[in-house]
Amino acid sequence: MNVESETVSVGEFEFQCGETVSELEIAYETYGEFEGDNAVLVCHALTGSAHVASRGRFEEGDQAYAWWDDIVGPGKAIDTKEYFVVCANVPGSCYGSSGPSSENPETGEPWGPEFPPVTVADWTDAQRALLDELGIPALYAVVGGSVGGMNVLEWAKRHPDHVEKIVPIAAAARLDPQCLALDGIARRAITTDQHWNGGHYYGGDHPDEGLALAREIGHVMYFSKSSMERRFGRRAATREAERAFPTDPAGRFFPYRDVESYLDYNASKFVERFDANSYLYLTRAMDNYDLSSGFESDADALGAFDGEALVMSFTGDWHFTTQQSESLAEALRETDTGVAHHVVDSDYGHDAFLVEPDSVGPPLSDFLDVGLSGSAISDTREKTDESSDFAPVHNSLFSR
Amino acid sequence: MNVESETVSVGEFEFQCGETVSELEIAYETYGEFEGDNAVLVCHALTGSAHVASRGRFEEGDQAYAWWDDIVGPGKAIDTKEYFVVCANVPGSCYGSSGPSSENPETGEPWGPEFPPVTVADWTDAQRALLDELGIPALYAVVGGSVGGMNVLEWAKRHPDHVEKIVPIAAAARLDPQCLALDGIARRAITTDQHWNGGHYYGGDHPDEGLALAREIGHVMYFSKSSMERRFGRRAATREAERAFPTDPAGRFFPYRDVESYLDYNASKFVERFDANSYLYLTRAMDNYDLSSGFESDADALGAFDGEALVMSFTGDWHFTTQQSESLAEALRETDTGVAHHVVDSDYGHDAFLVEPDSVGPPLSDFLDVGLSGSAISDTREKTDESSDFAPVHNSLFSR
Repeated sequence: MNVESETVSVGEFEFQCGETVSELEIAYETYGEFEGDNAVLVCHALTGSAHVASRGRFEEGDQAYAWWDDIVGPGKAIDTKEYFVVCANVPGSCYGSSGPSSENPETGEPWGPEFPPVTVADWTDAQRALLDELGIPALYAVVGGSVGGMNVLEWAKRHPDHVEKIVPIAAAARLDPQCLALDGIARRAITTDQHWNGGHYYGGDHPDEGLALAREIGHVMYFSKSSMERRFGRRAATREAERAFPTDPAGRFFPYRDVESYLDYNASKFVERFDANSYLYLTRAMDNYDLSSGFESDADALGAFDGEALVMSFTGDWHFTTQQSESLAEALRETDTGVAHHVVDSDYGHDAFLVEPDSVGPPLSDFLDVGLSGSAISDTREKTDESSDFAPVHNSLFSR
Repeated sequence: MNVESETVSVGEFEFQCGETVSELEIAYETYGEFEGDNAVLVCHALTGSAHVASRGRFEEGDQAYAWWDDIVGPGKAIDTKEYFVVCANVPGSCYGSSGPSSENPETGEPWGPEFPPVTVADWTDAQRALLDELGIPALYAVVGGSVGGMNVLEWAKRHPDHVEKIVPIAAAARLDPQCLALDGIARRAITTDQHWNGGHYYGGDHPDEGLALAREIGHVMYFSKSSMERRFGRRAATREAERAFPTDPAGRFFPYRDVESYLDYNASKFVERFDANSYLYLTRAMDNYDLSSGFESDADALGAFDGEALVMSFTGDWHFTTQQSESLAEALRETDTGVAHHVVDSDYGHDAFLVEPDSVGPPLSDFLDVGLSGSAISDTREKTDESSDFAPVHNSLFSR
């Protein structure tokens, strides 16, 4: 497949906050051939990158390796023989696009906390600017999961005439206060790290312990009680801990548990690849996203979009719940947008969209190829209400 | 009412870990008159104290003021005109009983992390030793909520002939791995605080930021999504923050939310009254509690108890779930113990037992006075299964 991986400047960029950078760099990848009407933008989740699919080889140690390789590629659900797939790292992140860890051209030093605050609207407009650079006037579809699904919604809100089909997966019009609280605590873990230094840590020790704590809190949000029970139970860890965290003499009387070992191990890998300031920036963008902002309601915000929508959710997801997706589908129904809410009954939690390609692929593929009439697509209006509450999880966002 | 508040030494005490202290001090309170067969032991929750009821006056600023005043007192559900109520602060805590912040008589300095690790079994045996000091050979009843309910179960396991009735409320035979993970992260927040110093911080700055983070994580565990939605929504805080936590320039673009303000305020109060090492010790005791430990099963562990049990739970509680209480009731049924599992349909979460005295009082009072035939007591065997999942919350464990 024809693959490109580049970083381009989209020139001066004004953020929602009113601040401007003279050169906004965007790291992106494309897959397949652009034929004028076949562009599909894929939006990554919180700590993802532009590297949505593999380039035909396994790239161990890559920054965030091919996070949706099961879905994007030749003959896959988003078939790169048919569609021209674009994925761009969002501003504020640390995988090639401008963000707090990249160089401020005016000082030659990392921006740090002087980088402008970013919003999901900024991500969307930066993607629009990138598409202008690439000569792509309009998109056939925008697809994304988690906060990437918020990014999808923002496309329908800000550029309704530039996209025909939207697929927000495991997403929501806004986070609930439980998630706001946990994300806020995660940020506090970073900003209270003795090495955070107001965000100016690039010349010295990084706030790795705070970032690791933040990641562990986030990680639990992707699991459900039942999946944690199945995966870890209350077992002691079998391998000797590389104890990322200190303990005291009394603590050593108690077992180091498998669930702790798993979280610690993944957090220690995460801090090697991710920037603490970016974690602050991106979680704030997610927390503060509100589809209805500037409008009367979610339906009003989506009123100008007259394409089709496939909303997907997972019963085991308590971070972005099935109920939130249903509310989103209702808003789309209010605007007479063609929409189906396809609920996947899954024991995996929030990142079922990553680890259950067999569930996600068929309805997604059908929707792109034939629209809402696709036989693999179900809709909540069709069946009796199987409401779910608080279930399982996911791990791939983290183990990858 | 006749009230005593004392601290006594129960002499040398050997902990489960095998370590010994030469003098274990226990802070306790008693209410009412002991008449030989009317003693009721009340077990406090994680950060509670011996001060279960008021002494006829409102004591503002008290360390942890009368945490169950609605339930314990003259004419109340646990009627101190009938029952002789004893409540003791657990070893490892910081409200008068020996723990890491109390003085090691051998050094004249605080024990810090050299205090022996404590378990729920140790709490139970310390209470047994206290009752020996007080001349109380056996208890009519043991009642407690949350980890205090684990303490209740341990009484039936370790001293089955010394108690007639047990009331574990919002409790469980063991925590699930989701709670283990969150408690573990909370402890990491303390031990990574720059002032923790391996637990030896008493002479200098205390690890207040880490303890505040730990408390905020715990606090979220007492809320449900729906109660947080109702109480906080996504509103910005109305009062100016006493920002307990630092932020960066970009962070100030986003609102300080009501839910953050609430957590920060309560955490700032908590660190004034609680010791960080005690938080490590007591959460480890809770996390490592397993009713079946040393036995084949929960039922086996409770096999020698031939009294009666009232198990109470709350539908909105995801920390100690209704399902866990049902499993506990099943274990008791297996042993042919008289038991009812009374489920309260409550939008408050884990500490409904503190904030819903009108729901908790009548079945508790009936059980103590007339046993399981009490008209206010329901049992899950009687009704169709109204299973619940993940609901509301609580605040009083924290706001008090």
